[in-house]
Amino acid sequence: MKYCISCQDLYDEDDAGTCKECYEEANETEEELKREIDELKAKVAFLKFWSPTPSARSHPASFSDVVLVASEDASAGAPVPVPAHKAVLVSRSPVFRAMLENEMEESLSGTIKIGDVSYDALRAFVNYLYTAEVCLDEDMACHLLILAEKYQVQHLKDYCEKFLVSKLNWDNSVMSYTFGHQHNAKHITDAALTLITDNMDKLTTREEYVELVEKDPRLVVEIYEAYLSKQVNTAAQKDSSLKT
Amino acid sequence: MKYCISCQDLYDEDDAGTCKECYEEANETEEELKREIDELKAKVAFLKFWSPTPSARSHPASFSDVVLVASEDASAGAPVPVPAHKAVLVSRSPVFRAMLENEMEESLSGTIKIGDVSYDALRAFVNYLYTAEVCLDEDMACHLLILAEKYQVQHLKDYCEKFLVSKLNWDNSVMSYTFGHQHNAKHITDAALTLITDNMDKLTTREEYVELVEKDPRLVVEIYEAYLSKQVNTAAQKDSSLKT
Repeated sequence: MKYCISCQDLYDEDDAGTCKECYEEANETEEELKREIDELKAKVAFLKFWSPTPSARSHPASFSDVVLVASEDASAGAPVPVPAHKAVLVSRSPVFRAMLENEMEESLSGTIKIGDVSYDALRAFVNYLYTAEVCLDEDMACHLLILAEKYQVQHLKDYCEKFLVSKLNWDNSVMSYTFGHQHNAKHITDAALTLITDNMDKLTTREEYVELVEKDPRLVVEIYEAYLSKQVNTAAQKDSSLKT
Repeated sequence: MKYCISCQDLYDEDDAGTCKECYEEANETEEELKREIDELKAKVAFLKFWSPTPSARSHPASFSDVVLVASEDASAGAPVPVPAHKAVLVSRSPVFRAMLENEMEESLSGTIKIGDVSYDALRAFVNYLYTAEVCLDEDMACHLLILAEKYQVQHLKDYCEKFLVSKLNWDNSVMSYTFGHQHNAKHITDAALTLITDNMDKLTTREEYVELVEKDPRLVVEIYEAYLSKQVNTAAQKDSSLKT
């Protein structure tokens, strides 16, 4: 019986982990990694902008030189513009860059119209461009993923994809699969496909399945193809394990 | 004798480190920390600006709305202005914020004159405000620390201090001590003071010492006070270790 240096508990010889030297080395590595994290966090805090979107903390003089307008809000009276800086938009999105550098209508008028989006989603989108921060729920993550895809803001798209994958379950799997396909979100598509093909016996009774067959049968074919290739793989594995 | 899981070497029982469970836990922690580092690095890359200072990579249309001018270069013909954005300057430095938000001369003219600085140092300074990156040597670190102190860019000041502390040696210790004092760089002052008081026997023969007595005797007094309190502490420690 020995004492573990780390948890101070007694352990059997068979449960031995490392020698003392490796334990100390691992400890040092951990310290170094934590220092690096602290430095990176300070860098992020430094590089973050205060956002020019309206809030209690915002500054009166933001030197904003462009506004974004959510076109969806047009029905509810005059849309509220979201102020921004061309320099920031251009540095975060190649689509905004092309739009603003080529002196297109948006650059001359100082107004960028964003279609099919609510004011809240647009505000969160612009805010993310300044701070790399956003508070997500599933609805917002979908809206922002669409915007990120449209304006090629890869960092935000990755973030939304990761969030939506973490929220994946049987109930939203077909919807997520379709959504992932529509917006080139491969992580979501793949994760949803795995979940669906693991539960094929329950699939055909679902309402969303019937709808998908109606609306986009090619996507249903892909599900069956994935299921088939999974079955073939499993069979091959069983086969080879029987032989050995 | 046991095998260490980590380095695969045999070790004596006395050199045992951790149990298997703690080894695995430590491994997981390390993986998690590395993932966090990757995420933070991606965030830094996203938040970084392309800098508007002239370079091969710079964009033709930078939407710059202010220029900074190094006044030191005035003798060598017309100074080269460094383009920037008010929004960036304001978000990185409270001094620039006060200057630009209060519609002082600089805000109205769109030109900020920076005194006692070379064009290269000013360019590196502005570049840091956009990217949190700079390639330092000792000379540049001193110049940037002074600018960071003047414009209250704490992140850059910390960075320069850390760099200068790492370059500290007996030859530059008195100079560093004086420099740290002049620019409120406490880490440099303290580290230099420790180095000096560890080598008091060699101090008084140094040229810089004689100069400092002449120019700023109060700083010399502080050295002696630190030396004295170190001696008292060492004596007290020896005393208590003799008693026990």
